[in-house]
Amino acid sequence: MLKPREAVLAVPLYHPPLAGREGLRLDFNENTVGCSPRVLERLRGLDPEQLVKYPERGPAEAAVAGFLGVPSDEVLLTNGVDEAIHLLCETYLEADDEAVIVVPTYSMYRIYAMATGARVVEVAAGEDFAFPAETLIERVSGRTRLICVANPNNPPGSVASREDLLRIARSAPDAALLVDEAYYEFYGQTMLGAWRELPNVYVARTFSKAYGMAGLRLGVLAGDAEQMKSVRRVASPYNVNAVALGCVPEAIADQGYVEGYVAEVREGRERLKKALGVYGIRFWPSQANFILMRVGLTKTDSAKFVEQMRRRGMLVRDRSSDHGCEGCVRITLGPKEHVDRMLAALQEVVEELGIAQGASPR
Amino acid sequence: MLKPREAVLAVPLYHPPLAGREGLRLDFNENTVGCSPRVLERLRGLDPEQLVKYPERGPAEAAVAGFLGVPSDEVLLTNGVDEAIHLLCETYLEADDEAVIVVPTYSMYRIYAMATGARVVEVAAGEDFAFPAETLIERVSGRTRLICVANPNNPPGSVASREDLLRIARSAPDAALLVDEAYYEFYGQTMLGAWRELPNVYVARTFSKAYGMAGLRLGVLAGDAEQMKSVRRVASPYNVNAVALGCVPEAIADQGYVEGYVAEVREGRERLKKALGVYGIRFWPSQANFILMRVGLTKTDSAKFVEQMRRRGMLVRDRSSDHGCEGCVRITLGPKEHVDRMLAALQEVVEELGIAQGASPR
Repeated sequence: MLKPREAVLAVPLYHPPLAGREGLRLDFNENTVGCSPRVLERLRGLDPEQLVKYPERGPAEAAVAGFLGVPSDEVLLTNGVDEAIHLLCETYLEADDEAVIVVPTYSMYRIYAMATGARVVEVAAGEDFAFPAETLIERVSGRTRLICVANPNNPPGSVASREDLLRIARSAPDAALLVDEAYYEFYGQTMLGAWRELPNVYVARTFSKAYGMAGLRLGVLAGDAEQMKSVRRVASPYNVNAVALGCVPEAIADQGYVEGYVAEVREGRERLKKALGVYGIRFWPSQANFILMRVGLTKTDSAKFVEQMRRRGMLVRDRSSDHGCEGCVRITLGPKEHVDRMLAALQEVVEELGIAQGASPR
Repeated sequence: MLKPREAVLAVPLYHPPLAGREGLRLDFNENTVGCSPRVLERLRGLDPEQLVKYPERGPAEAAVAGFLGVPSDEVLLTNGVDEAIHLLCETYLEADDEAVIVVPTYSMYRIYAMATGARVVEVAAGEDFAFPAETLIERVSGRTRLICVANPNNPPGSVASREDLLRIARSAPDAALLVDEAYYEFYGQTMLGAWRELPNVYVARTFSKAYGMAGLRLGVLAGDAEQMKSVRRVASPYNVNAVALGCVPEAIADQGYVEGYVAEVREGRERLKKALGVYGIRFWPSQANFILMRVGLTKTDSAKFVEQMRRRGMLVRDRSSDHGCEGCVRITLGPKEHVDRMLAALQEVVEELGIAQGASPR
């Protein structure tokens, strides 16, 4: 009888709540406005020839590499960052190897790592979700082949310092260190180019967040050219669709659009922090386009909160099941008008549920 | 020092000649005209909200399942058939397992299978590229976990009978049998639903060929619902882009477009066969949208032919490096006007190179 590999059967099911998302989308850390109008214009004017032909990744890859200021052979465009994670797991991990991740963090590191048969070593974030550099280094073993760090991390929005990341890369020269910079634009610090000194460092970027192109699926994996050759071996030559490839030059050309959006998000972040402070709701200072907050002590509390927000047209994400996030909800920031609406709903919900009464003291 | 897995280093590099494709594209078995105008219209009118949101595969998956006449849980939309192959390899193969393929065939089965660390067992096609059912069954071992059959096969265009495929599935109940029906529309016979009786049968389909949507990257994997659950575990929830998902309902609704195109291709196939017969050039009767022909005895001969065709604005594909294809070239068929141009160029090249003089007797 046909049986899937044991490792695949052990992979946890991951069903993000994508269906029926009616309301203001503050649940997936997407851009809540849209992509640059130049991207939209390019999409609408796309040469029909680009749809019928197999996509050619090369030219867009060169454009993105140029934008990042690195040579083309250090860059691979991927079908979203998920594919970059998948390819790194396939390149470096096999049964009996170990992958080290920080918890809580983005779900797909664990999923793709487990699918290879490797053991996933979870390192709990420190107090207030501080990056656990010391513990992580202690947990690196002779079998560690991949370390994944989202920086900023999701859902807490906390960051790892450059020094800590370099220290980890040095302590684990036999492991690839993926620094997932999906939220780079909201933070501003990068490990890009660190592979010149430490060839085990990889950086991932995405066009799904600040650039507002999540639907087009475009991720970037950057790293040492020699290591990258191996990653390319397991990637389909046709992994990225022609619409994403055709639009990305406009996306990177319109930096004004991205900068404007990021500035609005940062302003919104300050406003939400202030409001949460006033209500006495515990939250964690985030360097990304979202804030994690504790709206109660249990899953029931966070579920109630999410439901009350939903009734007011606000989609926010329950993160109660994440490590150390009991009773927590994550809210994505956007431009002023969206933050206005979210704050108005928040005030109502806080009053209705009595959260401001000190249910979750700071 | 960071080292990729041995299995990955053993994967052959695959660089299809995608760059600088100036001329009539008869080299990748693409549709040479374009996708349905309804697809193009949908793309241009796509709600910008679809670009900024993470794609939701469910509704399009249900539409495709409905079109194929199977329940949704038997269908997974993929980032082209390449991803379907990748996911099947990951689901069933690990080091020390065996994958069985027929040679010559599509390149990616071998690449993804080797990346898992499995051994790839090659079964040579028979006389005139006949499907080697007997030999294949003999080569199935206790370690065989995946068998890949392109039907029609590429590059020869030959087919495997339903009886042979069922026999293989029965002989190898511990292995998944992928029947890759990328060229189904030009052939008309399918194994869809065979998994009701034999749960190890999978079928792949694509929108890259007859539908003319290669740039959008949309493949279909169909199979037993229970088996499919495992495949879904290793797929990203966001593997297919929103443009492909948004356009596919129009593509399947416009069957008239596909049927018209397929009829033209079939007519062109007959015309090319007739011309090759007249020139005395050996070819193999194909059930797909291409014909493989022997234009000489060596790689030099086929390279010369490809170059002469290129000078006349015709891109055709040298298949000399494929098993049993020394001196062979593959030409994609299209509508009348494209076939007219191709045949005119062919006549010139045949004369210039003296191929019709009996260099490759039938």
